[in-house]
Amino acid sequence: MPLVRIELVHGRTVEQRQRIGDAIHRALVETIGVPERDRFQLITEHSASDLVYDREYLNIKRTDNIVIIQITLSTGRTAAQKRALFRRIAENLAALDIRREDVWINLVEVAKENWSFGLGLASYAPEVVPQKATA
Amino acid sequence: MPLVRIELVHGRTVEQRQRIGDAIHRALVETIGVPERDRFQLITEHSASDLVYDREYLNIKRTDNIVIIQITLSTGRTAAQKRALFRRIAENLAALDIRREDVWINLVEVAKENWSFGLGLASYAPEVVPQKATA
Amino acid sequence: MPLVRIELVHGRTVEQRQRIGDAIHRALVETIGVPERDRFQLITEHSASDLVYDREYLNIKRTDNIVIIQITLSTGRTAAQKRALFRRIAENLAALDIRREDVWINLVEVAKENWSFGLGLASYAPEVVPQKATA
Repeated sequence: MPLVRIELVHGRTVEQRQRIGDAIHRALVETIGVPERDRFQLITEHSASDLVYDREYLNIKRTDNIVIIQITLSTGRTAAQKRALFRRIAENLAALDIRREDVWINLVEVAKENWSFGLGLASYAPEVVPQKATA
Repeated sequence: MPLVRIELVHGRTVEQRQRIGDAIHRALVETIGVPERDRFQLITEHSASDLVYDREYLNIKRTDNIVIIQITLSTGRTAAQKRALFRRIAENLAALDIRREDVWINLVEVAKENWSFGLGLASYAPEVVPQKATA
Repeated sequence: MPLVRIELVHGRTVEQRQRIGDAIHRALVETIGVPERDRFQLITEHSASDLVYDREYLNIKRTDNIVIIQITLSTGRTAAQKRALFRRIAENLAALDIRREDVWINLVEVAKENWSFGLGLASYAPEVVPQKATA
C-alpha cells in the first residue's frame, strides 16, 4: 500500500538507488507490517540546485547525499510505530553508508478505501455484494 | 481541483501520454463530478529501474506498462464514488490498450480550503466580507 | 516542516528557479510561522506536454509560465492563515514578474508526528522517556 517517493541529487548508480529502495522497503515490512510484495516506489533524481534543503535545520547537518522520502500510506499507525519506522529507515540506510543526518522522511496518511492496485478495484475496500437469501 | 500525478516508464509518445491524461480526466468528470475544465496533471517518465513495482502483489500481474496515478482531491467522496472512479479510470485506459492490471491508483484527500487556482485566492473557500448595513 | 514541490515548464534558468523557491519560502515564513531554516523544496521541470493545465478554469487565464506548487505541511493552520499564505505566495511571485493568474497552489496536511528531519527521529513528536523516580 505505501507509495514511496524517493528524491535524490544526481550522482548515484542504478545499483545504489536500488539498494536505497530495498532498505526503505525492508523498514516498512519490518516495523509497520507492510506485506513483502507491497512495494511501489518512485525514484527521482534532481540537480543539486533543484533539490533544496537546509544544511542545519534543527541542528542536524545535512549534505548533498540527502535522501528525501515521502511515503503515502493508510491511516492507523500509532506514533510509536511511526517512530520505529523512522528509526529503522535511518538504520537500514546507514548500513549503506548514508549518514543518519541525511535521511529525511515525511508520511502522508490516507483512508484504506483510497487505493486501487489494479483491475479498477478498491483493493482494501471491496464492494460488499448482498447475498441472496436462501430459504 | 484534483491534482493528478501520472508516473510512467519511459517509452510512450507524447500523443500516448496525452491520451492517458485525457482518459483519466474523463473518468474524474464522469464519476465524481469534477468540472470539465478543472484539469491539472503532471506526467513524469522514469527509467524502468526508478519506477519500482511488484509484479504480482495481490495476485495482479503487472508489467512495465504500469500507470501509477496519484490524485489529490477534496474530501467528501463516498467509498462508492471512489470505487466508481477507480473502475472508470481502468475502463478508459483499457480502451487505450492498457491492461487493467497495470492501472495503479491512490487518492489523497484534502480540505476544500486547501486550493488556490490563481490570483492568490482560496478558490473554494473565499473570504466572507461582512456587508455594510444599509438603513 | 513543509515539503514544497514546485513544478514548472522547462525554460527558466537556475537562478530564476531559485528565486521562485525563495519567494515561496519567504511567504511560508511570513504568514504561517515556518522557521527560516525549515526549507525543503523539490523543483521539477516538465515538457509543456507533460504539465497539463486548463487555460481558463474558474475564469483565470493561465499561461505556460504557470507555477504549480504542492505544499505538504502539518495540520493546524486556520482558513485565514491559508488565505494569507496563498495571497503572499502570489505577491512574492508577482515581484518576479510571474502573473498572479499563473500561481497554482495546493496544500496537503499531515500530523505533526509524521516528520523526520534526520537521525531517524520523529522530530516534532519525540519519544517521552519516563523519568526514574528519585526518592
